[in-house]
Amino acid sequence: MFTGLSAFPLTPMSELGVDEGAFTRLVEQLVAAKVDSIGALGSTGSYAYLSRAERSRVAQLAVEVAGNIPVMVSIGALRTRDVLLLAEDAQKVGVKALLLPPVSYQKLSAEEVFSLYETVTANISIPLCVYDNPGTAHFEFTDELHGRIAHLPNVRSIKIPGVPEAPDQAKSRVDRLRALIPEHVTIGVSGDALAATGLNAGCEAWYSVMGGLFPKSALAITQAALSGNAQEATRLSDRLKPLWALFRQLGGGLRVVATAAEIRGFCTSPSLPLPLKVVSGEGRQRIASVIDELELS
Amino acid sequence: MFTGLSAFPLTPMSELGVDEGAFTRLVEQLVAAKVDSIGALGSTGSYAYLSRAERSRVAQLAVEVAGNIPVMVSIGALRTRDVLLLAEDAQKVGVKALLLPPVSYQKLSAEEVFSLYETVTANISIPLCVYDNPGTAHFEFTDELHGRIAHLPNVRSIKIPGVPEAPDQAKSRVDRLRALIPEHVTIGVSGDALAATGLNAGCEAWYSVMGGLFPKSALAITQAALSGNAQEATRLSDRLKPLWALFRQLGGGLRVVATAAEIRGFCTSPSLPLPLKVVSGEGRQRIASVIDELELS
Repeated sequence: MFTGLSAFPLTPMSELGVDEGAFTRLVEQLVAAKVDSIGALGSTGSYAYLSRAERSRVAQLAVEVAGNIPVMVSIGALRTRDVLLLAEDAQKVGVKALLLPPVSYQKLSAEEVFSLYETVTANISIPLCVYDNPGTAHFEFTDELHGRIAHLPNVRSIKIPGVPEAPDQAKSRVDRLRALIPEHVTIGVSGDALAATGLNAGCEAWYSVMGGLFPKSALAITQAALSGNAQEATRLSDRLKPLWALFRQLGGGLRVVATAAEIRGFCTSPSLPLPLKVVSGEGRQRIASVIDELELS
Repeated sequence: MFTGLSAFPLTPMSELGVDEGAFTRLVEQLVAAKVDSIGALGSTGSYAYLSRAERSRVAQLAVEVAGNIPVMVSIGALRTRDVLLLAEDAQKVGVKALLLPPVSYQKLSAEEVFSLYETVTANISIPLCVYDNPGTAHFEFTDELHGRIAHLPNVRSIKIPGVPEAPDQAKSRVDRLRALIPEHVTIGVSGDALAATGLNAGCEAWYSVMGGLFPKSALAITQAALSGNAQEATRLSDRLKPLWALFRQLGGGLRVVATAAEIRGFCTSPSLPLPLKVVSGEGRQRIASVIDELELS
């Protein structure tokens, strides 16, 4: 399940709780588009803002609605104790894989992060994807540390935060990491603007924010790249430059995609947990224009 | 209560829960030394790693043991919803002030942070201290934003993350912030190595990590500075340079102070929540030597 397009849906919510109807609609769209896997409760799914009970309920719902498409959920938490409980909850409701970022409040050392993965992988019975996202977890992996963690039992994929823009540099970066990890561990790119470059450089998966809302557009890029048509993947991704610009200018992929989901009628506004805010005013109008002009779906 | 030495005790814990006996001993020592206030459940008190119920229980214990010394607790959480609940819990058990950092997972905008403080200050009935700690909360305040927040109701202090090392630059930095905030809002320095410099530059309070374990040593520096004896404050702080070096070299103040608390017999080892680890091996021996040689108490 760690190849192809892994689509990360939003978890629309208000201050009163998760909008289960809206979440269901989003997952149904992913099922209809036949994405390769669903990454529920990722950063895009605002896992960090939900209680343990809410996370378990959303994971269960994702599994129910996803049918035959495998579901992965994040079990990230500041404390190892909580990560282990979340892993237990997730396995109970039938998710097929776990996504683990080394979330931090106090800055973590490489040894502490290794121990976290060592403890968790020894206590689970389904595959795990290492989630490398320095922008949210505030930990910088070295390739050497990735190599050590990738050899732990149950580790099957690494979600990297992007690749260099230049294709040859992207390939060197993926090759360098590949040389340090076992064959059964895949590398998945995230950072949507760099997905085509990453897939063309040898990443086997795309862990995608936009794919959680616009699965067909994301599948087209993924399938072009993975069938060896690098040029077409690049062309399709370049076409989306106005979307990547919005991600940069309007507070990141999460806020833009949540706003887009509201515009497209998947959920009511606001759909993000305070203090996070969706995009309003002129920015919101730009999002509406761009997703229409690009015919995202 | 936002002047003088505010001592931030550890919350010693194992994977099974908080060691209430050890926490009580630490607070008793602060009471005996007559610190000006107690900052329980700060970053040093590992608030971010505890459940809501645990935080309420530790706050209650702190208030009980502290007697006449006012207690402040952090109500930091990723979600505004949870911050409001924590504020309610804290007020119920009788804390005298709330400490609020803009904890983030998704990077926050200045507008989002201002709205957070606006909402929280409108919903509390005791004073609040703004907690500026980019190293853990991952948000960078501007002085302009501090100025806007300081004018909100119930705001009474700002805990800044340190000052420039050079005394004249430290004074300029404090003066710049002072010009933007009302008179009833104090500025408190943190970053223990820069406390004397900060107090000498006009900060009214020291929010102190080492003061939570070694209150007498921290009070001596505070009292020298606040009575106008800048030179003596600097001399006492310079004497502790071997301690500041350990903070830098061994993973930060929290890990060093937790290890020192274990060495001094306040709590059993390990006293930090996994994945955090206390200092072991040669580093631990250095801590033992330094706290003995400096006669910290």
